[in-house]
Amino acid sequence: MNLLPQWVTGFVDGEGTFYIGINQNKTMTVGYQVLPEFRVVQHKRDIKVLYALKNFFRAGVVRINHDTRYELRIRSLKHINEIVIPHFNAYPLVTRKQFDFIKFKRIINLMNQNKHLKKDGVKKIIEISSKMNR
Amino acid sequence: MNLLPQWVTGFVDGEGTFYIGINQNKTMTVGYQVLPEFRVVQHKRDIKVLYALKNFFRAGVVRINHDTRYELRIRSLKHINEIVIPHFNAYPLVTRKQFDFIKFKRIINLMNQNKHLKKDGVKKIIEISSKMNR
Repeated sequence: MNLLPQWVTGFVDGEGTFYIGINQNKTMTVGYQVLPEFRVVQHKRDIKVLYALKNFFRAGVVRINHDTRYELRIRSLKHINEIVIPHFNAYPLVTRKQFDFIKFKRIINLMNQNKHLKKDGVKKIIEISSKMNR
Repeated sequence: MNLLPQWVTGFVDGEGTFYIGINQNKTMTVGYQVLPEFRVVQHKRDIKVLYALKNFFRAGVVRINHDTRYELRIRSLKHINEIVIPHFNAYPLVTRKQFDFIKFKRIINLMNQNKHLKKDGVKKIIEISSKMNR
């Protein structure tokens, strides 16, 4: 199953999520850990398409999501910077998910500058992410 | 918002439905009415993408589906034959929705031969459609 880039964007416009996890983590000086994630969830009957997406992006892992659902998730900052963001810059989303992607990019940009390791940066990231996926 | 054909297939792989409605209808000699429908449902915040799909296919109507959800639906047998089926023949679905599309085409083919107006034909259509969208 070879996927074409426009197909991938269309499928992600329907089924994908750009997500910023923010976990309390007392071992970190700032008290929070910021975990960006690009994710596509499918019923297990369509697990093949998750592997096809993994193959397309050449990144991520396919894991159980919940019950009968599986997900492809890409969490590596390197892969997000070098693969995920360039793809959706070249083949833009057309639904309102594009606005989530723009916020996601802003946060990744802050992380690239190590702003998530400082209090002000985390505060800003929490503020941006609170407006995502609503 | 101009949509590209591969994007449309990707989006429909996630969000579209090929549906055969079978209604009891005593005014019809065979007792049943067969209503094929291609449908894409979205939350109203993404109603624009439904109008973009309507514009892409140059067919269908955008209507309320349920509560906060809207749908583009194409019911015309002519438009299904001349627009919907040729699109998904040229840009094939890659998820298991492809199997629904194949069954949908078999039923449309029977309808093109007016088989849905005879008892045997309706029986066959009910049998095929019972295996769709499971």
